Amino acid sequence: MADVPTGLWLIGARGSVATTAITGLLALRRGLAPPTGCVTELPELAGVPLPGWDDLVVGGHDVVGTALPERAERLADGGVLPHRLVEAVAGGLRAVDGEIRAGYHPVTHRGSQADAARRLAADITGFRERHGLARVVVVNVSSTEPPAPDVAEHDDLAALERALADPERAVLPPSSVAAYAALRAGCPFVDFTPSTGIALPALDELARRERLPYAGRDGKTGETLLRTVLAPMFGARALRVRSWSGTNLLGGGDGATLEDPAHAQSKIASKARGLDALLGKDVTAPLHIDNVPDLGERKTAWDHVSFEGFLGVPMSLQLTWTGIDSALAAPLVLDLTRLVAAAHAAGRTGPLGALAFFFKDPLGSDEHRFAEQTRELYRWAQELA
Amino acid sequence: MADVPTGLWLIGARGSVATTAITGLLALRRGLAPPTGCVTELPELAGVPLPGWDDLVVGGHDVVGTALPERAERLADGGVLPHRLVEAVAGGLRAVDGEIRAGYHPVTHRGSQADAARRLAADITGFRERHGLARVVVVNVSSTEPPAPDVAEHDDLAALERALADPERAVLPPSSVAAYAALRAGCPFVDFTPSTGIALPALDELARRERLPYAGRDGKTGETLLRTVLAPMFGARALRVRSWSGTNLLGGGDGATLEDPAHAQSKIASKARGLDALLGKDVTAPLHIDNVPDLGERKTAWDHVSFEGFLGVPMSLQLTWTGIDSALAAPLVLDLTRLVAAAHAAGRTGPLGALAFFFKDPLGSDEHRFAEQTRELYRWAQELA
Amino acid sequence: MADVPTGLWLIGARGSVATTAITGLLALRRGLAPPTGCVTELPELAGVPLPGWDDLVVGGHDVVGTALPERAERLADGGVLPHRLVEAVAGGLRAVDGEIRAGYHPVTHRGSQADAARRLAADITGFRERHGLARVVVVNVSSTEPPAPDVAEHDDLAALERALADPERAVLPPSSVAAYAALRAGCPFVDFTPSTGIALPALDELARRERLPYAGRDGKTGETLLRTVLAPMFGARALRVRSWSGTNLLGGGDGATLEDPAHAQSKIASKARGLDALLGKDVTAPLHIDNVPDLGERKTAWDHVSFEGFLGVPMSLQLTWTGIDSALAAPLVLDLTRLVAAAHAAGRTGPLGALAFFFKDPLGSDEHRFAEQTRELYRWAQELA
Amino acid sequence: MADVPTGLWLIGARGSVATTAITGLLALRRGLAPPTGCVTELPELAGVPLPGWDDLVVGGHDVVGTALPERAERLADGGVLPHRLVEAVAGGLRAVDGEIRAGYHPVTHRGSQADAARRLAADITGFRERHGLARVVVVNVSSTEPPAPDVAEHDDLAALERALADPERAVLPPSSVAAYAALRAGCPFVDFTPSTGIALPALDELARRERLPYAGRDGKTGETLLRTVLAPMFGARALRVRSWSGTNLLGGGDGATLEDPAHAQSKIASKARGLDALLGKDVTAPLHIDNVPDLGERKTAWDHVSFEGFLGVPMSLQLTWTGIDSALAAPLVLDLTRLVAAAHAAGRTGPLGALAFFFKDPLGSDEHRFAEQTRELYRWAQELA
Ligand SMILES: NC(=O)c1ccc[n+]([C@@H]2O[C@H](COP(=O)([O-])OP(=O)(O)OC[C@H]3O[C@@H](n4cnc5c(N)ncnc54)[C@H](O)[C@@H]3O)[C@@H](O)[C@H]2O)c1
Ligand SMILES: NC(=O)c1ccc[n+]([C@@H]2O[C@H](COP(=O)([O-])OP(=O)(O)OC[C@H]3O[C@@H](n4cnc5c(N)ncnc54)[C@H](O)[C@@H]3O)[C@@H](O)[C@H]2O)c1
Ligand SMILES: NC(=O)c1ccc[n+]([C@@H]2O[C@H](COP(=O)([O-])OP(=O)(O)OC[C@H]3O[C@@H](n4cnc5c(N)ncnc54)[C@H](O)[C@@H]3O)[C@@H](O)[C@H]2O)c1
Ligand SMILES: NC(=O)c1ccc[n+]([C@@H]2O[C@H](COP(=O)([O-])OP(=O)(O)OC[C@H]3O[C@@H](n4cnc5c(N)ncnc54)[C@H](O)[C@@H]3O)[C@@H](O)[C@H]2O)c1
Ligand code: NA
Ligand code: NA
Repeated sequence: MADVPTGLWLIGARGSVATTAITGLLALRRGLAPPTGCVTELPELAGVPLPGWDDLVVGGHDVVGTALPERAERLADGGVLPHRLVEAVAGGLRAVDGEIRAGYHPVTHRGSQADAARRLAADITGFRERHGLARVVVVNVSSTEPPAPDVAEHDDLAALERALADPERAVLPPSSVAAYAALRAGCPFVDFTPSTGIALPALDELARRERLPYAGRDGKTGETLLRTVLAPMFGARALRVRSWSGTNLLGGGDGATLEDPAHAQSKIASKARGLDALLGKDVTAPLHIDNVPDLGERKTAWDHVSFEGFLGVPMSLQLTWTGIDSALAAPLVLDLTRLVAAAHAAGRTGPLGALAFFFKDPLGSDEHRFAEQTRELYRWAQELA
Repeated sequence: MADVPTGLWLIGARGSVATTAITGLLALRRGLAPPTGCVTELPELAGVPLPGWDDLVVGGHDVVGTALPERAERLADGGVLPHRLVEAVAGGLRAVDGEIRAGYHPVTHRGSQADAARRLAADITGFRERHGLARVVVVNVSSTEPPAPDVAEHDDLAALERALADPERAVLPPSSVAAYAALRAGCPFVDFTPSTGIALPALDELARRERLPYAGRDGKTGETLLRTVLAPMFGARALRVRSWSGTNLLGGGDGATLEDPAHAQSKIASKARGLDALLGKDVTAPLHIDNVPDLGERKTAWDHVSFEGFLGVPMSLQLTWTGIDSALAAPLVLDLTRLVAAAHAAGRTGPLGALAFFFKDPLGSDEHRFAEQTRELYRWAQELA
Repeated sequence: MADVPTGLWLIGARGSVATTAITGLLALRRGLAPPTGCVTELPELAGVPLPGWDDLVVGGHDVVGTALPERAERLADGGVLPHRLVEAVAGGLRAVDGEIRAGYHPVTHRGSQADAARRLAADITGFRERHGLARVVVVNVSSTEPPAPDVAEHDDLAALERALADPERAVLPPSSVAAYAALRAGCPFVDFTPSTGIALPALDELARRERLPYAGRDGKTGETLLRTVLAPMFGARALRVRSWSGTNLLGGGDGATLEDPAHAQSKIASKARGLDALLGKDVTAPLHIDNVPDLGERKTAWDHVSFEGFLGVPMSLQLTWTGIDSALAAPLVLDLTRLVAAAHAAGRTGPLGALAFFFKDPLGSDEHRFAEQTRELYRWAQELA
Repeated sequence: MADVPTGLWLIGARGSVATTAITGLLALRRGLAPPTGCVTELPELAGVPLPGWDDLVVGGHDVVGTALPERAERLADGGVLPHRLVEAVAGGLRAVDGEIRAGYHPVTHRGSQADAARRLAADITGFRERHGLARVVVVNVSSTEPPAPDVAEHDDLAALERALADPERAVLPPSSVAAYAALRAGCPFVDFTPSTGIALPALDELARRERLPYAGRDGKTGETLLRTVLAPMFGARALRVRSWSGTNLLGGGDGATLEDPAHAQSKIASKARGLDALLGKDVTAPLHIDNVPDLGERKTAWDHVSFEGFLGVPMSLQLTWTGIDSALAAPLVLDLTRLVAAAHAAGRTGPLGALAFFFKDPLGSDEHRFAEQTRELYRWAQELA
């Protein structure tokens, strides 16, 4: 698939994760940095037919106006990006900025959600045609939404489309409007956030009907990554985990969003699902997400695991993870774009459970153990070859 | 293999690990505690023909005289064993104590090492006959020795046996005398320590000639266990580990032994081999083992990992492990006894690389990744069925 | 004041803190343990006229029936008390148990709160007379209550007493009923909990009228102790603290009580007051208290401090405190009893601000800096001599 | 003393600490940054007659040639200095660079150490005259040396000067040659490193004869600072510290120097003295300093404290300090310059024990408790007013 021009359309294209992914892609393309953090560059995935760095063209939606070069400068001040890289790719950033369109915002939008979706889809198809792209992968990296209430229309495509046409209703959360628009534009969709996005039966129905693959949800980049690596160890050693307590301190845009308990709820639910699946329900597992603005783009997570060994003796493990969230997420966004493009080219449809490796709350898979996810990823990717 | 009476002969039978294993076995047999920490009780190993808890008979060698019930009391004071369990199995401890014989000590021994080995072997065969055992697995849990100097006789069995016969030489370190005696008594051998033990070409030659399996070396129970779980994650995510620094604080008998830098050297070498294999040689990896007597049987290990992500941004992970070393080791000693007995019954010979799961420095295997070791263990064990 | 028989009356006499204090006192009296943790045994307080260990007689109120010897056994299982000590002082525990009376419980009580207070006061005066005590110090170590709503009667003793007489009202929370009863019985009062207790203008009025001293509130034994030690360092070095985040994991009775967010509120408020006073209001300071039952009597607190140094560079400090709460609290309960008895003997009245050293939320003092509190304690105590 | 032109002469003027101090001074002077980390700007020191930021003129010695602006750029890359600040003060850095002279290096020097000292002293007096300075404070921030062997001439000034004149001897380590030269030039001396420097009886004799004050030794900026803050807490609470273990991971120039065990020895000795003084000799206190180059200018220190509470129960405290060493040191270098200049102006001579607040191994004081040091500093400084 090298030399096949491929689009990456980012929902939230001016956010930290998006800006880091775009800057990094421009740097990789010019050989200014090694592909650290890019899973698709590992020898284990050699031979998989992926689009090259040069083949990727980027555009997206956002609801804020800050231009990408400025956003990247601010990330450099925050230690996410090296200053000299940002300077070196300033031209490329301006070019991508020209491909960013106004996203759907429920507060400012007038008209039905169907109108909104049509407009979003048109932005994407215009981009595809303008650049002569074989396909466009739409990736949601916009702000986390609160959990959406269940409504019957979410379970049935026909009912959903009737509701969408009603200008007095807003039956879908914005992330799902974005997913719907992507599918209507014939694009595979990746949900990197814990928002509802594509995870509704009606949208799954649409994806299958349109023969489109999708993947999600909520990029696994820090505390949860560690948990899915470590929890299986306790199991394999027959040690009894009694409690797994976690505190996450983060600043940045994500910290500000998650300060609102309603928004944090999605994230906490998404994190908790993994632990339950790995350790069972009888483990005490308090979990906190705190907005600590001065941390900027850094995130610190502390986990305390208490467990019992032979004859019931109590022991403990503590972890402190100090990461730059966007730097962990951005290469995965590029990896997912390449892998989902390849899956689309190979005719895969529906949820790509083999991409569970990348997600806190994997769609199409119940596997949370990281080592098993890794093996499954390699196996699946090699089948695309 | 249930109902096949099987011996467990412990070198260092009055040490912390041994005493904990013996007390635990007696408790398991009477249903006084669940088999937490016992890998052989996991569903994944169901169906493997292993001796039952009731089938195991214990004896051993040691060079100190403290009776097992007293040793167990002291471990209860140190939080390793519940007081009430020690009281409940006091009779059983006294019985095992009656099966402990004086080990080989280079300082007090007179005569050739061949004489010593004959005497040790006779202790083991006497035990086997007295209890009508189908086989005896010899497990070394004695104090860690300093690394032994290389001598040519270690590479050739015939030359070794000539040197052993010379009363003026002490060609083998005590752990290797024990291994030699075990093999001469027709017994499989397990090396739970980082000492030289069976890891000499001449002893491998003997084991193969006698058609005996063996396993080793250095039980993987704490910091190294975590490293072999976590290091593969960095690899799978294409993150670049730059340094992995470790400090181990421990008291107890093991702490006192490792206070001597010569003895610590074996342990540090054994720990380092794993990290090199997992991450390569260009990772800065300072490692310390400190004797902190007041910690008693508790061990605290702190690891600091610094790594680079996308575009070179620096991040870090810290781990603090607070464990009771003997409580982590003891169930593995029982697991290894059962698995090696089954391997012997099934005619396996030479180093059992499939048991790498249990060891810091696995004999017969170059696999250090814990998840791969786990899969290999399950696969191998099911083949014994 | 040695040889002056002095009473210690514990509200919550069967709780963890109380049981540990009682067991420890019995052990100290018999020379079975050194006075580790007892501030009043430091050379800096030599010469202060304090009652001796032999002079203290203990009784109290509680609302549960578990006998002290059983309670102490359970604490020994949890690692708070050495088993052999509990056995050694079993007789003494039974004797103290005979001096415990039923406390006031709003759910089971019938009649006015004035009736309840009369009954509680009678229990205390009966105890004082029965044992010929010069004075009785009443110390509240009962379960933390939720914050009490402000009502006008709390500000005026006459109004309060009118309301207390009304059988249809429950104008005071139980901790304040206990404080009121203590004062009516002519006893100094110590509030070791964050509950309302004596911290009401009307009760201060009563204490002054009765010429009684009192002290509080909320024993400072872990995370807050560290904060009041470390925060002044940042100030003295002109470093700018930006955030101080804390997570407390605890089990035991206190963990169970604080699981209820209403009860936790008092504790969180009491902890927060210190940090505000030390660092000012513009420091981000999320704080969590989680009930983790398997930790039993152990408490683990993690603090993450982010601060700015020269030219704005960000740095951080992390602390993990792993303590046995009751073992930290109990000697302070004995210290406070001795010091408040001495203050009463010396004619001190009202809040004893010089005891701020012992409390998270000191009554009668705004000083939170530990070093200053220490100096003030020594100065004040020497004045009693 | 505002408006009194005062020199700061840095030994090691191109090192990290020096470059950070110089850049910061230039920034403070232009109001580009607040004086975070500068103790002399605290209200407690208001009114002390100190030279202002504008009054300070900087020069120094070094043995490497990298120009200050380049050195500052590299520190900005390492996160020690903000890039925009370095750019803003580039002109000022170039000016200071013009005042840096070649230091004394034992390997390249030819002739007697007396010759070397004369040349160094001439550099300093030339600087003083050229800028019309009232006084010059010489501050040693050069690389840590190994401990120097004791020789009789160190105890007696006359004997020392005879040995210095002998071109075949090198009786003093470089830091002491620098101190000797400073005193001969009539300058007060500050030793910010653990090297021998001025801490020799013969140099103390010289300082007193010349009526010069001096201060040292080894700036207290991280782990030791925390220890002198926390250790007194354990004492004041009568808790029994059993072990205090420390691991320091650091990169940068200091990390490289301390990789050599001989050089590390001075640092470890200087750190250990404080702990012994605070806690006594029977505390187990292993201490490690590891060179971890990838950490760059960041330093991470982990301390594990185990202690006993009431009735002997074991508890622990862990600390992880993640700091930028030079950012912690630099403002103290400026503070010391101002305070020592004021002390000189006020006629103080000999070791300034009241500056113990700043040092790991204070000269002229046995006080290691940080709170007491703070009070003493304030008291002493106010006396200069
Ligand atoms: N390691 C990680 O960084 C990580 C891991 C997992 C998930 N995530 C998720 O990725 C998302 C992005 O994180 P971030 O740190 O970049 O956050 P951010 O706040 O920096 O960026 C989010 C962007 O989304 C935009 N946006 C908001 N609503 C929109 C809408 N309706 N349409 C289009 N754009 C919209 C915002 O304007 C903003 O530019 C979050 O949901 C986060 O939870 C991140
Ligand atoms: N988690 C763990 O506890 C763990 C993990 C890996 C390896 N190990 C290894 O297991 C071994 C035992 O550890 P421990 O904590 O029980 O130590 P320990 O000091 O309590 O016990 C060692 C015993 O070996 C005996 N011994 C010494 N020399 C002997 C000889 N020549 N012959 C027979 N007996 C001899 C000693 O007398 C002692 O009773 C150590 O080598 C340790 O490194 C332990
Ligand atoms: N380090 C510490 O342990 C520490 C520090 C500061 C404050 N405290 C406070 O000390 C108190 C006791 O802690 P604990 O761990 O012993 O708790 P606990 O739950 O073990 O004991 C509390 C006791 O109070 C009794 N009680 C409840 N309501 C009562 C009433 N109305 N009258 C009389 N007795 C009553 C309970 O029955 C129980 O026996 C708590 O409020 C806690 O917040 C403890
Ligand atoms: N927090 C801290 O940074 C801190 C705290 C306490 C002590 N110190 C001490 O401060 C000193 C400087 O630390 P740094 O991080 O700046 O180290 P650095 O290696 O960056 O700088 C040391 C400088 O000294 C110069 N130098 C070496 N020998 C010299 C000589 N004979 N004459 C003149 N210059 C010479 C070197 O060329 C180098 O430029 C070290 O001794 C360190 O131990 C630093
Ligand atoms: Na191997
Ligand atoms: Na001193």
